[in-house]
Amino acid sequence: MPMKPIQTESTLQTLLRQFQDCRHQTEQICAPLTPEDHVPQPMVDVSPPKWHLAHTTWFFEQFLLGPFNPDYRVYDTDFAYLFNSYYNNAGKRILRPNRGLMSRPPVQEVLNYRSHVTQAVTDFISSRSTAARALEILTLGIHHEQQHQELLVYDIKYILGHQPTFPVYGEAFGLQAEKQEFNWVPMEEGIYSIGYQGDGFCYDNELARHRVFLEPYRIANKLVTNGEYMEFIASGAYSDFNLWHADGWDFLKVNQLTAPLYWHQQDGQWLQYTLNGLVPVDPTAPVQHISFYEAFAFAEWQGKRLPTEFEWEAAAEQFSWGQVWEWTGSAYLPYPGFHKAPGALGEYNGKFMVNQQVLRGASVATAADHSRNSYRNFFAPPSRWIFSGIRLADSL
Amino acid sequence: MPMKPIQTESTLQTLLRQFQDCRHQTEQICAPLTPEDHVPQPMVDVSPPKWHLAHTTWFFEQFLLGPFNPDYRVYDTDFAYLFNSYYNNAGKRILRPNRGLMSRPPVQEVLNYRSHVTQAVTDFISSRSTAARALEILTLGIHHEQQHQELLVYDIKYILGHQPTFPVYGEAFGLQAEKQEFNWVPMEEGIYSIGYQGDGFCYDNELARHRVFLEPYRIANKLVTNGEYMEFIASGAYSDFNLWHADGWDFLKVNQLTAPLYWHQQDGQWLQYTLNGLVPVDPTAPVQHISFYEAFAFAEWQGKRLPTEFEWEAAAEQFSWGQVWEWTGSAYLPYPGFHKAPGALGEYNGKFMVNQQVLRGASVATAADHSRNSYRNFFAPPSRWIFSGIRLADSL
Amino acid sequence: MPMKPIQTESTLQTLLRQFQDCRHQTEQICAPLTPEDHVPQPMVDVSPPKWHLAHTTWFFEQFLLGPFNPDYRVYDTDFAYLFNSYYNNAGKRILRPNRGLMSRPPVQEVLNYRSHVTQAVTDFISSRSTAARALEILTLGIHHEQQHQELLVYDIKYILGHQPTFPVYGEAFGLQAEKQEFNWVPMEEGIYSIGYQGDGFCYDNELARHRVFLEPYRIANKLVTNGEYMEFIASGAYSDFNLWHADGWDFLKVNQLTAPLYWHQQDGQWLQYTLNGLVPVDPTAPVQHISFYEAFAFAEWQGKRLPTEFEWEAAAEQFSWGQVWEWTGSAYLPYPGFHKAPGALGEYNGKFMVNQQVLRGASVATAADHSRNSYRNFFAPPSRWIFSGIRLADSL
Amino acid sequence: MPMKPIQTESTLQTLLRQFQDCRHQTEQICAPLTPEDHVPQPMVDVSPPKWHLAHTTWFFEQFLLGPFNPDYRVYDTDFAYLFNSYYNNAGKRILRPNRGLMSRPPVQEVLNYRSHVTQAVTDFISSRSTAARALEILTLGIHHEQQHQELLVYDIKYILGHQPTFPVYGEAFGLQAEKQEFNWVPMEEGIYSIGYQGDGFCYDNELARHRVFLEPYRIANKLVTNGEYMEFIASGAYSDFNLWHADGWDFLKVNQLTAPLYWHQQDGQWLQYTLNGLVPVDPTAPVQHISFYEAFAFAEWQGKRLPTEFEWEAAAEQFSWGQVWEWTGSAYLPYPGFHKAPGALGEYNGKFMVNQQVLRGASVATAADHSRNSYRNFFAPPSRWIFSGIRLADSL
Repeated sequence: MPMKPIQTESTLQTLLRQFQDCRHQTEQICAPLTPEDHVPQPMVDVSPPKWHLAHTTWFFEQFLLGPFNPDYRVYDTDFAYLFNSYYNNAGKRILRPNRGLMSRPPVQEVLNYRSHVTQAVTDFISSRSTAARALEILTLGIHHEQQHQELLVYDIKYILGHQPTFPVYGEAFGLQAEKQEFNWVPMEEGIYSIGYQGDGFCYDNELARHRVFLEPYRIANKLVTNGEYMEFIASGAYSDFNLWHADGWDFLKVNQLTAPLYWHQQDGQWLQYTLNGLVPVDPTAPVQHISFYEAFAFAEWQGKRLPTEFEWEAAAEQFSWGQVWEWTGSAYLPYPGFHKAPGALGEYNGKFMVNQQVLRGASVATAADHSRNSYRNFFAPPSRWIFSGIRLADSL
Repeated sequence: MPMKPIQTESTLQTLLRQFQDCRHQTEQICAPLTPEDHVPQPMVDVSPPKWHLAHTTWFFEQFLLGPFNPDYRVYDTDFAYLFNSYYNNAGKRILRPNRGLMSRPPVQEVLNYRSHVTQAVTDFISSRSTAARALEILTLGIHHEQQHQELLVYDIKYILGHQPTFPVYGEAFGLQAEKQEFNWVPMEEGIYSIGYQGDGFCYDNELARHRVFLEPYRIANKLVTNGEYMEFIASGAYSDFNLWHADGWDFLKVNQLTAPLYWHQQDGQWLQYTLNGLVPVDPTAPVQHISFYEAFAFAEWQGKRLPTEFEWEAAAEQFSWGQVWEWTGSAYLPYPGFHKAPGALGEYNGKFMVNQQVLRGASVATAADHSRNSYRNFFAPPSRWIFSGIRLADSL
Repeated sequence: MPMKPIQTESTLQTLLRQFQDCRHQTEQICAPLTPEDHVPQPMVDVSPPKWHLAHTTWFFEQFLLGPFNPDYRVYDTDFAYLFNSYYNNAGKRILRPNRGLMSRPPVQEVLNYRSHVTQAVTDFISSRSTAARALEILTLGIHHEQQHQELLVYDIKYILGHQPTFPVYGEAFGLQAEKQEFNWVPMEEGIYSIGYQGDGFCYDNELARHRVFLEPYRIANKLVTNGEYMEFIASGAYSDFNLWHADGWDFLKVNQLTAPLYWHQQDGQWLQYTLNGLVPVDPTAPVQHISFYEAFAFAEWQGKRLPTEFEWEAAAEQFSWGQVWEWTGSAYLPYPGFHKAPGALGEYNGKFMVNQQVLRGASVATAADHSRNSYRNFFAPPSRWIFSGIRLADSL
Repeated sequence: MPMKPIQTESTLQTLLRQFQDCRHQTEQICAPLTPEDHVPQPMVDVSPPKWHLAHTTWFFEQFLLGPFNPDYRVYDTDFAYLFNSYYNNAGKRILRPNRGLMSRPPVQEVLNYRSHVTQAVTDFISSRSTAARALEILTLGIHHEQQHQELLVYDIKYILGHQPTFPVYGEAFGLQAEKQEFNWVPMEEGIYSIGYQGDGFCYDNELARHRVFLEPYRIANKLVTNGEYMEFIASGAYSDFNLWHADGWDFLKVNQLTAPLYWHQQDGQWLQYTLNGLVPVDPTAPVQHISFYEAFAFAEWQGKRLPTEFEWEAAAEQFSWGQVWEWTGSAYLPYPGFHKAPGALGEYNGKFMVNQQVLRGASVATAADHSRNSYRNFFAPPSRWIFSGIRLADSL
């Protein structure tokens, strides 16, 4: 995981503060849950909240405390097997679809594990002249945990949204109206520089910074709204094969989809499950919980298209973003000059660079300061439980 | 569910006591569990303990309190949807494979629900001249809950036995050595009467009592032991197709089976997961957790066979039984004169009379006085998470 | 495969004639087919006609010529791999679902193979004092090929019936009206002898002859007709769960069944594919191509039941049978004293004695003299491509 | 399907000649097959040769003769249902996995159908002043049939290569040694124009021609050979997860892959099935029949990468290509300004632009003059039955 290092005394304190805030924030996200809510895995992409709490902790133990602190004693040697996600280099692990079978350890023991590791990291960072590489790992661990915070919100919503009783989690993570007037942002043809530039942290997939040539285009200054999406549905779009990719059409048919995830039609009205319960769909808020296939089909229906990730990045300072992640027309591929780091941390991004689509922006569930113009999020095209939406573009 | 009715004043008190003991016993079985242990469904045949606690309660609400007590107010109208098992006549329900997704209601609310219904039944039975049919339903409900107590033990063992940490539940439900000397019990040819006879409770599948002719046979006075089963394994039986049904051989290959469920080989020694943790296999105890296919193959290997359920019943007073259920060579079919009762309770047994094999006897997890000579247990041939074993027979 | 042996000079000629007729008949069944029709395997239970032609030939080569004629040279050593069906003792073979991938050898070469083996058997039987065991194998091989003749008809019908163009095969194998007046045949309680008795050929599963006690019952003198079955359908039976086994109900729903196999509704009329093309359903002919689940549900709907195989055999001389095989209420289990023969021929019947239901009688596709009162046919409960029908019974 | 039109008198004759040659060539490819070989569909991606023969014929009937020749009478109205591939706009069709069940019509009737349509097209084109759009469709139909010629070769190889007897098809379509010395072709950074330019035929996916910026790179002048690939295997690459995409690693494990398709290890030697039978792997010939995952992993192992499709096209005149298609690192996405044509022909390319990887070049099975520098072939990453290989590239 190549990243911009360099830590002074004062940044060390900042980093420690970030670490502690991050650890606290994860626990806050789970605070409204019952112990039982921490257990289920209703689909393979969703992990039990208990697992997120433990896995983000194991990451610090495995990659920071273990290698860099010779005095550290592993909290429980079984946990590596239970809470490794996908790092082949870090040893065996339970199969992903079996995460929801692990009732043990109970939530309280996972919280104890968290406290133990949070304290151990704090002591380790505070008390000695820490190697620069260890501080890099710490930084990566914070960003890693921030990513899991967002997944936690997705997964909690999925777990609660599949209870027949539609329970209330709380008021957080709701979407607001997109209030600005619709405008096209025109962009001129030319060579643009793409990828991270600066001294802060970035992921390896944002590098190397490089040049792309863009033909002239324009990009919308606001997200597609629920109101527009209801028109799309009402037009019969979910049964018009001409709007869809072949794979997308199969996906619709196999799963019998007729609306975004969490939408339910009752007496002719569209309701949606939110973390605040089942409520009428707000036509002014951005549409959310749609797959790449649906985003593509909506753009087809409009006679427009999705922006590429390069078009998005080149224009990103000219519109506001951050309620939902935005599907782009770009497949997730390495930038010129990208190389995987050796070992487990090299598995972080590179091995997923096939069969995935890039999303840009951020969502209401994204940790503050976690995203940036060059940030590349990615998911498989059918993903709907993520906080995803649509911004349109057009060639000129 | 036709059963022998007639309740006097004193039997009413006995019945109420049985009901309360039964309710208490179910809760005792779950007492060693964490809230998290109540949630997972690691395979479709296993139900979450929370579900058993609630379903056995719903049964009394649905079939006793609702129809017979006009003053009863349903505890929560969502619960019928959540906790109906398979009664089509009692309305819609969540799909069986989704039971493990229901983190709500939490365990504590299920226990509140239990208390509410236990009290309502107690009040209802105590305070008024209850219809004979209501007492029949109460009796059935007790026997139904006793069946679920046994399933609870199976399911808890499966959930805990699939934790990588092999947690300890407690000392209950262990098997003892079969200490008696091996003997064959010889049985003469003749007409035997089969099926329930008496004034107590029985299930509809034990009726009508009828006659069968048996050719001469003999039946073992003890169960096959782990020691004998280890010899069977050591002989290469799991790779000798000649010993197996075609379906059984496929079952072995698809699931890569080489030993009973819960057996693990470590350094050349066989260990088994028990509710008391991972321990060496005891060669003197009866073999347990084998499918019908394995029971059949073992008998083939011995040059013997499994008894039919009729042979078992005819001889049952001449040997001891009750550590594990015993696979018979009989498919689960209706007795002459069997008729399903109308409505939901008719779904109790009859609709399962295909593709199942009969087991006779009882197990250490069977409620006291729940079983009897004429009792017909049944499971699909591949079932291994049940407390099942082998008794041999032979034609003369 | 234990069978009644003893061959004199004149029976030797009879046997040879039977063999040659049998070989010829198999080829006649395939005569109306194109080479292309010999190839597909539209579901796993169906084998390509080419495969049947070759497999029945391989059987004589493998079990008769190879072991008993030291001068015989195997026609093609690859064929054992291609045309062994399920005899684990006879070596490796292609997986059953892959039979339809084998375009080679072409039909003409299979016919050459048939001629070669037919001639070799004829020469072998004619020219030397053949061992009694060889004649037993020859007899078994004829009966084996007769069974495949019937499967050939089923499989040809399935292949042609799944062509969108519903091609005509020919006039053979159609059903006639059941013209007799409906009557119940009453049967008294008592001990009946069951199983083959006599000096002719029988399968091992018809032995040992043994005694069963039957409670009093009655059995219909005619088969259920298409007309009656259309009433059953019209009554809503395919959506009334109370009539069905739990497994049967799942089977209906998963496969979206609403009528027997080969039935098609057009403009409110029921048509059925026959080997003579798509024609209106004849209400006077027996219903055909129904699963055990449908047979059971029909009987439930009538307030009757299916006969057991013992009831059927005890009464079989008192009604006519032979248009379609008749589902019984009996699971396919060994008779008392049954033992598998050692080696490959022991795999013929015994290893299928689980998860199957017995059918009794014969069908229009059964070779003349192939069936008898004691004959036990068996198929899995969902089977519908076989020539199966319904006879009702009732307890008295 | 936008394409460069304009037909003069003499080009009309050329076009007709191309049409007739093309039709003849398809039939030549099938000439070595038996009728039986035309039937099987051993995996869902493979179509029966009979289907290709008919489908390419239906294409001319459906899109050329039907719409443009008012006198044309459809040969058989059932054929549209049988031989439409994936054109939703052209009506219903049999499900793709069921193509191998259609034994009817027989091969000879399909050949008759071909003759009929070939003649009808010839007459139609020869005898009247044909609309320019009709000539465009004819041109497209020829290119369409050429694509199916290549698929025919793949599918024939798959069908024959899965016969246990490894039959010989003939000498065609073998690979030669890559004899040139290995060299890197260096390429400078800059803006390159990508996409089709010229007056001939091209597919819509090659347009619009547009500009891309390429960072400096180099690209190999020869394909990776079997010899190099055997070293890759021998190094343990198929069990080193660090070389693989996560999806690729799953693909290996699920399918238990250890070598390219058609490779068989015998006595420590690698053999491969070719259309000329089973022969030792030639170390000097290019590796063939590998998935995108394997191409990627090989490049990782070499410390290199696959070229993007833009890098390939920019450099294509500087190396020879054409024995096998070359996997690129580019996902199959629309070019700027791409729009689907309306109606069925718009389904030709656009709806597949997700979850596919681009291949560039041509193969020994590609029709002469069918490919070009701008030609974009595409397949899903796991595809191995195609004639695919590897060319390496590197960033500078």
